[in-house]
Amino acid sequence: MAKTIITVAPTGAWPSKKDNPAIPLTPREIADDVYECWQAGAAVAHLHMRDAEGRGSMDKGRFIETVGLIRERCDIVLNLTTSGDLNATDETRMAHLVAIKPELASYDAGTMNWMHKTLFVNHPEFLEKLGRTMIENGVKPEIEVFDSGMLYNAIYYIKQGVIKAPAHFQFVLGAPGGMAATVDNLVFLKNLLPAEATWSALGIGASHLPILYAALAMGGHVRVGLEDNVFYSKGRLAKSNAELVSRTVRIIQEIGEVATPADARAILKVPARV
Amino acid sequence: MAKTIITVAPTGAWPSKKDNPAIPLTPREIADDVYECWQAGAAVAHLHMRDAEGRGSMDKGRFIETVGLIRERCDIVLNLTTSGDLNATDETRMAHLVAIKPELASYDAGTMNWMHKTLFVNHPEFLEKLGRTMIENGVKPEIEVFDSGMLYNAIYYIKQGVIKAPAHFQFVLGAPGGMAATVDNLVFLKNLLPAEATWSALGIGASHLPILYAALAMGGHVRVGLEDNVFYSKGRLAKSNAELVSRTVRIIQEIGEVATPADARAILKVPARV
Amino acid sequence: MAKTIITVAPTGAWPSKKDNPAIPLTPREIADDVYECWQAGAAVAHLHMRDAEGRGSMDKGRFIETVGLIRERCDIVLNLTTSGDLNATDETRMAHLVAIKPELASYDAGTMNWMHKTLFVNHPEFLEKLGRTMIENGVKPEIEVFDSGMLYNAIYYIKQGVIKAPAHFQFVLGAPGGMAATVDNLVFLKNLLPAEATWSALGIGASHLPILYAALAMGGHVRVGLEDNVFYSKGRLAKSNAELVSRTVRIIQEIGEVATPADARAILKVPARV
Amino acid sequence: MAKTIITVAPTGAWPSKKDNPAIPLTPREIADDVYECWQAGAAVAHLHMRDAEGRGSMDKGRFIETVGLIRERCDIVLNLTTSGDLNATDETRMAHLVAIKPELASYDAGTMNWMHKTLFVNHPEFLEKLGRTMIENGVKPEIEVFDSGMLYNAIYYIKQGVIKAPAHFQFVLGAPGGMAATVDNLVFLKNLLPAEATWSALGIGASHLPILYAALAMGGHVRVGLEDNVFYSKGRLAKSNAELVSRTVRIIQEIGEVATPADARAILKVPARV
Repeated sequence: MAKTIITVAPTGAWPSKKDNPAIPLTPREIADDVYECWQAGAAVAHLHMRDAEGRGSMDKGRFIETVGLIRERCDIVLNLTTSGDLNATDETRMAHLVAIKPELASYDAGTMNWMHKTLFVNHPEFLEKLGRTMIENGVKPEIEVFDSGMLYNAIYYIKQGVIKAPAHFQFVLGAPGGMAATVDNLVFLKNLLPAEATWSALGIGASHLPILYAALAMGGHVRVGLEDNVFYSKGRLAKSNAELVSRTVRIIQEIGEVATPADARAILKVPARV
Repeated sequence: MAKTIITVAPTGAWPSKKDNPAIPLTPREIADDVYECWQAGAAVAHLHMRDAEGRGSMDKGRFIETVGLIRERCDIVLNLTTSGDLNATDETRMAHLVAIKPELASYDAGTMNWMHKTLFVNHPEFLEKLGRTMIENGVKPEIEVFDSGMLYNAIYYIKQGVIKAPAHFQFVLGAPGGMAATVDNLVFLKNLLPAEATWSALGIGASHLPILYAALAMGGHVRVGLEDNVFYSKGRLAKSNAELVSRTVRIIQEIGEVATPADARAILKVPARV
Repeated sequence: MAKTIITVAPTGAWPSKKDNPAIPLTPREIADDVYECWQAGAAVAHLHMRDAEGRGSMDKGRFIETVGLIRERCDIVLNLTTSGDLNATDETRMAHLVAIKPELASYDAGTMNWMHKTLFVNHPEFLEKLGRTMIENGVKPEIEVFDSGMLYNAIYYIKQGVIKAPAHFQFVLGAPGGMAATVDNLVFLKNLLPAEATWSALGIGASHLPILYAALAMGGHVRVGLEDNVFYSKGRLAKSNAELVSRTVRIIQEIGEVATPADARAILKVPARV
Repeated sequence: MAKTIITVAPTGAWPSKKDNPAIPLTPREIADDVYECWQAGAAVAHLHMRDAEGRGSMDKGRFIETVGLIRERCDIVLNLTTSGDLNATDETRMAHLVAIKPELASYDAGTMNWMHKTLFVNHPEFLEKLGRTMIENGVKPEIEVFDSGMLYNAIYYIKQGVIKAPAHFQFVLGAPGGMAATVDNLVFLKNLLPAEATWSALGIGASHLPILYAALAMGGHVRVGLEDNVFYSKGRLAKSNAELVSRTVRIIQEIGEVATPADARAILKVPARV
């Protein structure tokens, strides 16, 4: 059994303190939370920012502040969202990557209806610009796949040189508008991957643990955190992101080994930053 | 072996006379072509209109004119597009349904990147309006599924009462931005269908015949026509839509029976119109 | 998350004290081991006997002795093998069921090459006799499926009334001659199950944990024990069957709840014995 | 679309003149039938012999006589059964291969229950002997796969050098005791094939045409003939093997090209014999 990377997604764009009071929102809260998750065993932090009212924000300054606070204290691999605000411009979705040059950033490889209410737009022109910007700045895409078309799009962009191989994928299952969170679907997507790809998976909400167990069974990496799932178990809120990370560490240790940030950098073939 | 419905899609929104001179563009050309396809064995006609310059158009008058010419001569089941122009408004995408009340109309159950160049938008608000308009006007949706999320969306709308069961699906495989045209993928989608659904499939371009053969093997219905595929075989343009229909009739007759328009109405549970 | 049944298979027909000194072989050793596993959280015990030389045996007396020792001390559900010796007769494969009337007994629903060396024979005549004997004695079959043909055979026998529905299946993956132990294969088999069936799974050897995690992800029950896998982790022998059970309890408790023997009887619809 | 090999299986071990009077049984009948099928478009003939009472037979003399009559008249590729009589010895199952050295012979890569009545035994020892005999005599195995374990066995024997790569597989779907004849199952098996393998498929009985269409959709080769299916369509017996071959030629020609015997030798990498 190879080492398994735990990515923590502590904040996301949507959940509020009403959903779970443990969600970190300010740069300081997020940095403290990430540090605690790193202590618990997370190797990668997938970060979203919020504005003063708690709404998803692509504010570059907040990313810089938060990353600065994290880098002071630990070597966790940074994975910054590029989709933190459905109303952001193409430019504000990328500006923080140029400024910070994180190891990883999310790359949502297509467009979809979102939660039966609105659109999650990732226009082909944006995807080309984002890919080239990431190559120029040494940022590796974490290709988020909500449905199979996104995986096929990514394969197309790899062939076009817009994304460099070996690519890294995050299967995000269970978002209304995308593919449901079933083990069948996870197997289906995994079988479509390019040969050298690495991959991780997450199930949103109640499917969180089944997808986590299935990903481990199939040799994948995993993502946990309040962005995806505010509950620890049915009817019981998670006390913190670190609580979710700690459980994941225990689950992985029964079957294999938890990757350190240094392991994760080697597995993902991204250079050390710290 | 049950009876198989052949839908012909003679025009579409994209191919031009340069791609294949046999593509019918004017109401008169389309009506003549559909009549010829009906004689050849097509039971359903999926219609797009073009404007005077040959661009995809949702012009209600053209739909009315074309349908009038077709109904004078044959009982083919009418299936009108609601996605004939990427720049159309929600209203012009539906107005012809209210005016004509065809048996079927396409219902593209989600949004996607289109051909790595633009967006194919079907906003949740539009999908709700379209579904309710179709119910009010006695039009059955042919739910077009380019990727699995669209199938999951449709299941959601069925539960919401926005689409009536039993639903009818068209799997459109091989559009860049959606799911690739493989037998594996067709099997995968078919296994996600609601219990009482009927379904048809098509592969775009070179995958046309493999998907057609696989759909027949799996008990599905099929769609052919210059909208999806301008070639008859590698390097040889189709002479007409009817040539494609005639081949499909031969292929079906070796394994089963071709549905008449009356058979199709019974299978799809839509009332007779003629 | 429903409750998960842990079946322990402490002995099997093959492994010896050389493979792992912790394997229980005599009635007393097996009974003590099963008691320890019951304390650790196992709800079902799948039992094989060995003769004085440690070879697999269908000796009825040994089954009676062992079961007697177990029943004195705990309410674990009994699942007796019917395939404990490749050279046994049809009669000796069934005699202990008549004598003991355990809740469950294995039902290997077909014939296969075994380990590229010999045959594992379950002749259709035997399968009919075994099924009828089990019905007459109130023993529920645990249908062991090493390959898809065995599942199809079982469906046939259910239709024939040779096996009563709802049936219970054990997917045994990774035996050379049968289906390999992959998550793809487990998903494939699960999708072929009859509607009301319950199921469990195990992977032989190194695939033990991946199949266990996948089964939990898919809502299945699990089997562990030295019969299937003598190692705790790569290069480290299991100290005991109870060690394997305890690990499984921990893994289940992170995602759900461990079934008690009473829970197992309710889930499997077998009557209480104690 | 590559060229498709049609294998005809005119006789088999089971059907009688009562099932279909067109079944050829004597060497002369079989040779005449094969010649007619070759004229119709078959590239490979899979041959079984019958004794004077019409029972399946491995009589070497009959194989020699039949093959002699065929080779006088046409260059069809010869594929001789090694499983023509469930009571044959290992020796009589192979003796004709040594005498005739056909291009191909069937290799049933495992053991299974047969039709819920008896066993179809292919003991590991036999499979090793058969493989080595085939290599020594320049006979290429057509690996018959009735269930996934047989495919896994074949992969094992390829690794052991008992079967030479690139291997050729025949998926035999729908035999009671093996895998059912569904497109899902065909896709499943195809996805387990070694990288360079070639493959063909057949569905027994009513599933004949669906599996044929699905195999063509997936780029496989096909087998037809009264051995597998005595009906032309529901309730109508086939008039001859050649009638089945002719239909298959028509079906293939709508999607691709029928392989000649010379094409088949090139595709299967067997040397020319005539």
